[in-house]
Amino acid sequence: MGSTIKIPKMKNQYVSELESGQVVTDKFVLSKKIMKEKKDGGTYAMLEFTDQSGSIEGIAWHSVSEDIKKLSVGDFVYVTGNVNEYNDKLEIVVNSIHRLSEDEIEPADFLPKCDEDVDEVMTEINEFRAKVSNSYLKKLLELFFEDETFIDNFRLAPAAKKAHHAYLGGLAVHTLNILRLISGIQSVYKFLNFDLLITSTILHDIGKIHEYLYKKKIDLSTRGKMLGHIIISYEMVAEKIDKVPRFPEDLRLKLLHMIVSHHGEVEWGSPKLPMFPEALILHFIDNLDSKIEMMMNELKKNRGKQKEWSDYHPYLEREIYLREEK
Amino acid sequence: MGSTIKIPKMKNQYVSELESGQVVTDKFVLSKKIMKEKKDGGTYAMLEFTDQSGSIEGIAWHSVSEDIKKLSVGDFVYVTGNVNEYNDKLEIVVNSIHRLSEDEIEPADFLPKCDEDVDEVMTEINEFRAKVSNSYLKKLLELFFEDETFIDNFRLAPAAKKAHHAYLGGLAVHTLNILRLISGIQSVYKFLNFDLLITSTILHDIGKIHEYLYKKKIDLSTRGKMLGHIIISYEMVAEKIDKVPRFPEDLRLKLLHMIVSHHGEVEWGSPKLPMFPEALILHFIDNLDSKIEMMMNELKKNRGKQKEWSDYHPYLEREIYLREEK
Amino acid sequence: MGSTIKIPKMKNQYVSELESGQVVTDKFVLSKKIMKEKKDGGTYAMLEFTDQSGSIEGIAWHSVSEDIKKLSVGDFVYVTGNVNEYNDKLEIVVNSIHRLSEDEIEPADFLPKCDEDVDEVMTEINEFRAKVSNSYLKKLLELFFEDETFIDNFRLAPAAKKAHHAYLGGLAVHTLNILRLISGIQSVYKFLNFDLLITSTILHDIGKIHEYLYKKKIDLSTRGKMLGHIIISYEMVAEKIDKVPRFPEDLRLKLLHMIVSHHGEVEWGSPKLPMFPEALILHFIDNLDSKIEMMMNELKKNRGKQKEWSDYHPYLEREIYLREEK
Amino acid sequence: MGSTIKIPKMKNQYVSELESGQVVTDKFVLSKKIMKEKKDGGTYAMLEFTDQSGSIEGIAWHSVSEDIKKLSVGDFVYVTGNVNEYNDKLEIVVNSIHRLSEDEIEPADFLPKCDEDVDEVMTEINEFRAKVSNSYLKKLLELFFEDETFIDNFRLAPAAKKAHHAYLGGLAVHTLNILRLISGIQSVYKFLNFDLLITSTILHDIGKIHEYLYKKKIDLSTRGKMLGHIIISYEMVAEKIDKVPRFPEDLRLKLLHMIVSHHGEVEWGSPKLPMFPEALILHFIDNLDSKIEMMMNELKKNRGKQKEWSDYHPYLEREIYLREEK
Amino acid sequence: MGSTIKIPKMKNQYVSELESGQVVTDKFVLSKKIMKEKKDGGTYAMLEFTDQSGSIEGIAWHSVSEDIKKLSVGDFVYVTGNVNEYNDKLEIVVNSIHRLSEDEIEPADFLPKCDEDVDEVMTEINEFRAKVSNSYLKKLLELFFEDETFIDNFRLAPAAKKAHHAYLGGLAVHTLNILRLISGIQSVYKFLNFDLLITSTILHDIGKIHEYLYKKKIDLSTRGKMLGHIIISYEMVAEKIDKVPRFPEDLRLKLLHMIVSHHGEVEWGSPKLPMFPEALILHFIDNLDSKIEMMMNELKKNRGKQKEWSDYHPYLEREIYLREEK
Amino acid sequence: MGSTIKIPKMKNQYVSELESGQVVTDKFVLSKKIMKEKKDGGTYAMLEFTDQSGSIEGIAWHSVSEDIKKLSVGDFVYVTGNVNEYNDKLEIVVNSIHRLSEDEIEPADFLPKCDEDVDEVMTEINEFRAKVSNSYLKKLLELFFEDETFIDNFRLAPAAKKAHHAYLGGLAVHTLNILRLISGIQSVYKFLNFDLLITSTILHDIGKIHEYLYKKKIDLSTRGKMLGHIIISYEMVAEKIDKVPRFPEDLRLKLLHMIVSHHGEVEWGSPKLPMFPEALILHFIDNLDSKIEMMMNELKKNRGKQKEWSDYHPYLEREIYLREEK
Repeated sequence: MGSTIKIPKMKNQYVSELESGQVVTDKFVLSKKIMKEKKDGGTYAMLEFTDQSGSIEGIAWHSVSEDIKKLSVGDFVYVTGNVNEYNDKLEIVVNSIHRLSEDEIEPADFLPKCDEDVDEVMTEINEFRAKVSNSYLKKLLELFFEDETFIDNFRLAPAAKKAHHAYLGGLAVHTLNILRLISGIQSVYKFLNFDLLITSTILHDIGKIHEYLYKKKIDLSTRGKMLGHIIISYEMVAEKIDKVPRFPEDLRLKLLHMIVSHHGEVEWGSPKLPMFPEALILHFIDNLDSKIEMMMNELKKNRGKQKEWSDYHPYLEREIYLREEK
Repeated sequence: MGSTIKIPKMKNQYVSELESGQVVTDKFVLSKKIMKEKKDGGTYAMLEFTDQSGSIEGIAWHSVSEDIKKLSVGDFVYVTGNVNEYNDKLEIVVNSIHRLSEDEIEPADFLPKCDEDVDEVMTEINEFRAKVSNSYLKKLLELFFEDETFIDNFRLAPAAKKAHHAYLGGLAVHTLNILRLISGIQSVYKFLNFDLLITSTILHDIGKIHEYLYKKKIDLSTRGKMLGHIIISYEMVAEKIDKVPRFPEDLRLKLLHMIVSHHGEVEWGSPKLPMFPEALILHFIDNLDSKIEMMMNELKKNRGKQKEWSDYHPYLEREIYLREEK
Repeated sequence: MGSTIKIPKMKNQYVSELESGQVVTDKFVLSKKIMKEKKDGGTYAMLEFTDQSGSIEGIAWHSVSEDIKKLSVGDFVYVTGNVNEYNDKLEIVVNSIHRLSEDEIEPADFLPKCDEDVDEVMTEINEFRAKVSNSYLKKLLELFFEDETFIDNFRLAPAAKKAHHAYLGGLAVHTLNILRLISGIQSVYKFLNFDLLITSTILHDIGKIHEYLYKKKIDLSTRGKMLGHIIISYEMVAEKIDKVPRFPEDLRLKLLHMIVSHHGEVEWGSPKLPMFPEALILHFIDNLDSKIEMMMNELKKNRGKQKEWSDYHPYLEREIYLREEK
Repeated sequence: MGSTIKIPKMKNQYVSELESGQVVTDKFVLSKKIMKEKKDGGTYAMLEFTDQSGSIEGIAWHSVSEDIKKLSVGDFVYVTGNVNEYNDKLEIVVNSIHRLSEDEIEPADFLPKCDEDVDEVMTEINEFRAKVSNSYLKKLLELFFEDETFIDNFRLAPAAKKAHHAYLGGLAVHTLNILRLISGIQSVYKFLNFDLLITSTILHDIGKIHEYLYKKKIDLSTRGKMLGHIIISYEMVAEKIDKVPRFPEDLRLKLLHMIVSHHGEVEWGSPKLPMFPEALILHFIDNLDSKIEMMMNELKKNRGKQKEWSDYHPYLEREIYLREEK
Repeated sequence: MGSTIKIPKMKNQYVSELESGQVVTDKFVLSKKIMKEKKDGGTYAMLEFTDQSGSIEGIAWHSVSEDIKKLSVGDFVYVTGNVNEYNDKLEIVVNSIHRLSEDEIEPADFLPKCDEDVDEVMTEINEFRAKVSNSYLKKLLELFFEDETFIDNFRLAPAAKKAHHAYLGGLAVHTLNILRLISGIQSVYKFLNFDLLITSTILHDIGKIHEYLYKKKIDLSTRGKMLGHIIISYEMVAEKIDKVPRFPEDLRLKLLHMIVSHHGEVEWGSPKLPMFPEALILHFIDNLDSKIEMMMNELKKNRGKQKEWSDYHPYLEREIYLREEK
Repeated sequence: MGSTIKIPKMKNQYVSELESGQVVTDKFVLSKKIMKEKKDGGTYAMLEFTDQSGSIEGIAWHSVSEDIKKLSVGDFVYVTGNVNEYNDKLEIVVNSIHRLSEDEIEPADFLPKCDEDVDEVMTEINEFRAKVSNSYLKKLLELFFEDETFIDNFRLAPAAKKAHHAYLGGLAVHTLNILRLISGIQSVYKFLNFDLLITSTILHDIGKIHEYLYKKKIDLSTRGKMLGHIIISYEMVAEKIDKVPRFPEDLRLKLLHMIVSHHGEVEWGSPKLPMFPEALILHFIDNLDSKIEMMMNELKKNRGKQKEWSDYHPYLEREIYLREEK
């Protein structure tokens, strides 16, 4: 049945823009499905539909419940229906629904996206890269940036599944933030090895391109769960260093140590503590940027509301104070 | 006996500059004293002399041991003797020694000093202060900077007894470092309230001027041991805020919260966790600067030596890697 | 519509006294509200009503659901209906409901109340106060007890939001318990400074009068979340000490230290550990009384039931054994 | 040689009472012995002598060094010599020294003793015991107090090796303190089961009579190291309960639980947390009394000195403030 | 009504074997009961039925709801009805239901059971026992194995309420696993005291026969909650040792220490750490077997499914990787 | 002077075999050197000499003190002198001493050695290796065992600097112990993947061959301090896996995960927890063997002594009970 519907290549209705009364005919991920039994023997279904802009509840009465039984959570679906407001929330009352193959969708439509322009982010990262003058580090970075598969993934990867920068491009944005911050810090602590700081910042988290899955949804890969991004980053960097002729042993150890130690404490997953100033700074600034991003998310999410305090934040383990006016 | 010696007002020989063979006639703190018994019934004394540049051992044979019995550790003393090299170390062989009253010495001669020019440090802190445009915060800082007793103490106070910036002027140097770092950070996180950051940085540790004693030697005061600098800073700031007419309640809470929370974790002595971005940043950068200073101290102390690793550092709980060449 | 109903000034029906079959016409806080959709397109609402004596569920069918849509959780409401027993629980079947303004209610009707007579509690606290003979401490306490706003708040404030003595008057009851306990302890440890113990006990938690809100419901204030009652108590006491002429510095430090250290451990929010016997005792007895109160609550709540063990207690982190007969 | 000296049965010179210039002829424990080599080939010995009142250093020149070689640390010795003052400390210059058999000494002379009269302590404990009215608990206590070996040990045992009440009679004194404190507490918390509190207080630490050795010096026994006093107390009480006919099962569990849980936290060695009010109170008061005793020891030790702060206390993990005048 | 039904002595339908469409007439535990109200004023009930093989949901419409009101969760019930498939799950639609007395059921029918034959498990444990040659340990084990009540309970007891081996016979299976593992370890570490290892393994957890209730369902007993199995095992073993003439004191301490220390760390409930090799090994292998059993349960539960990772395991605090093919 | 002495190639006197009165002429490491001043102006030196069998003190009077001033701690020296017994300890009274070049010594003479025959240990490891039937794992192991440099280092490397198996060959002995233990365990848990267990056991610690220096003395290398053996082992195994054609990805992940997770807890330096049974077992048995070796060392060291308890063991954090007779 669904196959006779002409499905447009691109989504043009996003969850965050739906309004009460609107007619919906578009693609979503089916993110929740609960079948319910009515007293009279019929059934209905409580659903949830998701795209990159957010999620909306749905309800499907008896007539479509047979179609819904064939669907699984995680399926891409094509939905027609109406947007209703109920109990202060919007919901889609479903008229028809059927499954889509992966060929019929554009994955990026269903994944959380970056507010910033990733091209510009990458350009600025490259500008920092251009400032590295040590020939070995310069060459090492070149090997990564000339590797197209690497760059394609680096542009796409998130920095986390949930905690911070948990969207496509999040890794690049987080990396750029640290570069900018470290650049300011180096102007105060002039004794720091700037080349080493820039290089290690760019490379410290690259294992995340394999630690996460980010085609259909953002999740941990099996390799990520088994090894973690510290180990994967280490392996990726060590392998490319071996391709730079005469890379100095001392520099190799310092750079690899910075990757291994960047979580800062053994109980946070770094087998070694940072043992020289550049390593300590990479850890602090990496940690700071992730926490600030989480706080800023709370502030953004609540802007315009009357609330003085956010809900309890499970990663920051505190409530955030929301009043920004001074 | 000692009273007939003409004692110059100023020290002119510093421990760190003494050389084997030199004649010594100068003022020191007696920092160690152990009386020893010889087999033949006589006594001798093993001593240590200290000034702001460091410490040197001393030995005094039988003839002066009666004079030494009258002295206590911590006394200021006037010493004549000769510098000897023994077992790879220098020592003073004491010819005469007697106690000095506090009037006869210049306390600053005996306390560890800052490498930087404190006048310049204060000038730069004032430049940051001048950038604060919020009228209440501006006024609050003015009240502190126009308070001469406060400023005299702020210029002198150390930032710690031992851990980091443990010298006269250490509080000012540490404060300036944070101002500089935070200034760089604010240029990346543009949403931050710059005025609040500058003000809180300048004021967050001012309780240290009462937490420490730094006239004869650097030590904790009884008030410092009883209350700690978080509480004392709080009290000092709250008291001055009350003198700024119409200081907004919300701003008062934010500023005081930043003082209370700047140790970052309850187990590090902050009764509250940082609850908005500026508070979190103050904590991170304060912490970062103290740790970097400790690492840099190890690097400086070991420069020119063949060592690859420092000794175990009790505050950083690790050894520091010392090779700086790249 | 609701405005034409004649609303009595005082509540006369309390949740804890409602019985199946009774007619209800009284004021409550609307503490829960969930709109539900019927298969036939109609709606109904599941509600909860609360007053100082407890909470009861409610159900409102289609006819009143429009009125309910206008209400928010937290509103004071005037309800008419019938009490029904259903599934072993009572519920109010709502006939009419409308919102009340704050002028139309008596806040104390909706806040958990003390079992004890607060007047008597205050009288006994005053008797302890009368035993203080040190003139400075005597004067300090006088300054507080002659401050009517302070006393009004001190009588009303709870000792916690949830954990223990979480009711109007809880602070006074908890304070009196500690006074009584400490009085017994002092008779064993005769060397203790009784005046200091009494004074510090009365003042140690007074910051709670600002840490909590307790007009409409018991909650943390923003000042409380930002600073906590240790800091607020400190500030209140320090300010009044400054009004006692020639208050001895040593006594000031001891008293303020007792406030700062009364949580006993840094990780429990005290920046300093108790450093002399009176400070240690204040911490122990404060802690003991709060824990005993929690255990006693469990015992009281379960009296008359067949249960041998309470449910898991989230603050005490254990189940409580309930069998009291021996 | 030594055997021809007439050795008095009782000590009459105690370390704490020796004065410079005095002749010494008495019994001590040899608590330290270091043989030293002189440049000329001869030997001398640095020693330490201990009795219940404290320790004093000793020195023995060449002539007695052969006698000293035969002695081991821990031996009881008979010493003749002279008291000398050297380097601000007293020392015994030994003229003769020889070992004593255990028959020739009175062990109690060499063990730290109680300031209080143990007979009176036991009398007061018995007065508390007499207040127990529950017939089973009354009978249980009787079984212990009629057991002479038990009572002899209970009067002698220390409450710890070093931490608190670490002297002969310490267990009894600590037990009595808790009884007195608990008696005051019970007058506030009237709902408490007084009989259970008294009985459990008397019995909770009785395992210490086997956990420690206290004949020659106070040390842990092998049984103490292997099992600890919680287990040993449990076993002793369980065994006697079995001899009380029809002892109620519920009461048995409550009493044994109080012994098992009296350390209060699993990480402090209690396999179970206190689960009812009496158990919680026993834990708190036991803990309080041990900590107060440690603090009072510091205060006593330093009375009359100019010090404002004690040295760092390894068990309390803090320095103690010593100024008691108000 | 129910009393006229002829109820077979044995269950013959087990939850895990029910299929859609089947008629049910059998005994279950009523493990959940929620009464629901229909819009039209009628009621229905959502139920859950449990036996040793697992649980199944049930639904009972208006006609039987009066019978259901008389039932409590935990009751044994006799049910007639039909198995329906709904929302991918089976449920029993109840036609009649009534309570059974404990005489009418076989408790073991309702408790989780062992996959292994407990007779064989006990036989193999006895074979290990037969290898013990030390006459005192041999005699001690004999006293336990000749005690029929003990053996009956030992065969039945679970090793835990939920975590591992949480089924009838679990204690015996867990004990046998450790015996087998320890036997392999002893062949590598030949210096170990095999007799002591075997004996302590058999006895270390026997307190679980009193720590748990396992007649109607597996739960902690009051004695178990109050004392824990370490204390109960200790008491049981100490009591039987006292019946073995001339049992050596050193052996007694070692064996009892192994029971006391077998949780390995104080914070895991052992008042003492393992202090010799056999004690350390018992702790490690006991811990290993419980963790491996939990992992294997996850693997078994998920065999045949497509999942690569288990759900988060609350005791192991991780997800388990499920792919077993290599 | 020293150069004219004929120095034998091999040591023939070992520290542990020296006896009082013996003449010494042999090679040692100078492991301690303290110059001392005599009252008469002369100097003497207190020394310590070490070889693979242990350490002995030395004393050198004035006549050789000039030679000693030229020596540094860590030098290899050639010593002539006499063994003296003094104060219950042996010491060498030095007649002559001079430095040796590294060519003149056999490093192995100065490093702690294995009690077992390393050839036999390697043979048995190879026998385990031969049992691996999975062709990829078989090939992988072959690549390591055919790498002669690897095998030479593997035979020599210690398993730790101090904690356990801290001697040449310690890595091989520890590896073999785990293989034997795991082999016994696998016979109980038959479901385990034996090939994976054997392979991971052999490879899990191979990074130690680079983590430690063990030519002159056993110490951590800079690479070891920077990265640790988990990371180095990972890199070595990953590199060799890449040389095995078509090595299955799932097997690669499992094997590498076992290396990464073998410390068992994040706070013990494993970035990931063991996530399947084989990984958990490797962790447990590795941990068990290291702890048992430490306990056995204490037992061996104290055999024949009267002591019942070892000194406090800093790694095991307890005293060990030494009585082995039963």
